[in-house]
Amino acid sequence: MNRQRFVVAPGRKVKLKDYDPADTGSWRDEREAAAKIASDCEALAALQDKLLARETHALLLIFQAMDGAGKDGTIKHVMSSVDPQGCEVAMFSKPSESELKHDYLWRFSRRLPERGKIGIFNRSYYEEVLASRIHPERLAEQNLPVAIRRSKNIWRQRFAHINNFEQYLAENGIVVMKFFLHLSKEKQRERLLERLDVPEKKWKFSPNDIEERGRWNEYQRAFEEMLSRTSTKYAPWHIVPADQRWFSALVVADLVVAKLRSMRLSYPSTSGDERERAEARKALEGEA
Amino acid sequence: MNRQRFVVAPGRKVKLKDYDPADTGSWRDEREAAAKIASDCEALAALQDKLLARETHALLLIFQAMDGAGKDGTIKHVMSSVDPQGCEVAMFSKPSESELKHDYLWRFSRRLPERGKIGIFNRSYYEEVLASRIHPERLAEQNLPVAIRRSKNIWRQRFAHINNFEQYLAENGIVVMKFFLHLSKEKQRERLLERLDVPEKKWKFSPNDIEERGRWNEYQRAFEEMLSRTSTKYAPWHIVPADQRWFSALVVADLVVAKLRSMRLSYPSTSGDERERAEARKALEGEA
Repeated sequence: MNRQRFVVAPGRKVKLKDYDPADTGSWRDEREAAAKIASDCEALAALQDKLLARETHALLLIFQAMDGAGKDGTIKHVMSSVDPQGCEVAMFSKPSESELKHDYLWRFSRRLPERGKIGIFNRSYYEEVLASRIHPERLAEQNLPVAIRRSKNIWRQRFAHINNFEQYLAENGIVVMKFFLHLSKEKQRERLLERLDVPEKKWKFSPNDIEERGRWNEYQRAFEEMLSRTSTKYAPWHIVPADQRWFSALVVADLVVAKLRSMRLSYPSTSGDERERAEARKALEGEA
Repeated sequence: MNRQRFVVAPGRKVKLKDYDPADTGSWRDEREAAAKIASDCEALAALQDKLLARETHALLLIFQAMDGAGKDGTIKHVMSSVDPQGCEVAMFSKPSESELKHDYLWRFSRRLPERGKIGIFNRSYYEEVLASRIHPERLAEQNLPVAIRRSKNIWRQRFAHINNFEQYLAENGIVVMKFFLHLSKEKQRERLLERLDVPEKKWKFSPNDIEERGRWNEYQRAFEEMLSRTSTKYAPWHIVPADQRWFSALVVADLVVAKLRSMRLSYPSTSGDERERAEARKALEGEA
């Protein structure tokens, strides 16, 4: 698979209409893709074990998308094989009153993964240049000083904050990968209708979904600017076609496995020296 | 008082020998200074009340120094007048095992003050370019990837991380002021001897004090580089003469009050509109 086509090259000005949400590469259907996904999930589990044993790096996977694009499902599918002791999913909804009193990265940085672990952000600080941008009341409730809140530079500043933050993470051994699940407007209509009609999906519906859908174009523009301004060599964005759920899973699994392989993780060398190990063996064997 | 002489101008290459630790400005002794300190402490309490009512800004005061320079005493003296509900002191010693598994700013950013509050860092993330630099074992225990740990750029990178972090804080309304308490080596000897001899100070002594004193020159060089590389317009360093405890308190109180005054804090306008307020008055007066 040509992975490079999903990566947003740093500095590239993204136009989402150039990306086909229905793209499924050379795979025709879910059945054909199943073996590839299964083998990647198996590889992921083995790589995670080394990540956890070595404890020098962490992996942070960030998912952003419109409602119905399949963030939850993709995370569930790809992470089903990993050891939950080495993986933590953080789901971010609206900030609490106490969180609003802090700088806007505060509540996210608390949830960063420890070395050895995979951390998954289901939504993230990118909402601070998406929802907070499209809903001025979200920005207002942060109670920022007027000079900051009204500055015409506020979004440019936030893009810089985020890029600096992610560079800092990279330079601490925290590998950041970001996935934008790219859904078509027509497919979103289908998925929201499912939330109204399919019994086991009804709980997912919120009247807010329709309101947000009404701002589709605003969101697409905000996503485009986010993708254009915050894809860097140390924390690249990937645009993942999301009209076919199985293809999103296939692409994310493939990209994560490729990244972990490129890190050339190995188990730490044995602990204790030769003599200590010989003594331990003798003691244990002597018990028999 | 000429405050400007305590501020490290951004980009200035600091040589500590150019700064006199015994400097007391135009004050001759503690008695003469007492009225000035008392009036600044009173002003500080009034300004803090507005800071807390408005809840748009936070103030973060960072203290770094050699042992015995009087960080604890200065904080105690200057903050004695403020409402403890609006002030939190965080004292940082060695990181826990779990903290070591995170990026090095993690444990510090958790303790950042909420809007409206004064946060005080007694030692801070600056230890990451001081103690971690002078004691390679401190860096080793962070278990960073080899490429990062062995990079000759690691300190330059950390200075950049810290500058970016503080710029981010400033652009969130968190005002950062940094104080280096500048002590002479001879005065440190006196103060450490006090820790051996004076009954109520004996608990402060640690054999580690002597070991760190042995690295005096290394620390002075590390402080000089820290001061030279991380004094910025949004988060300036102040070099505070520390041979006379009362003068450190006087300088810090003066600088903090001047900063808060420059922020032109005011109480928020009354809440509720005229009609609501008139109705409330009527209801309350009607009770009589």
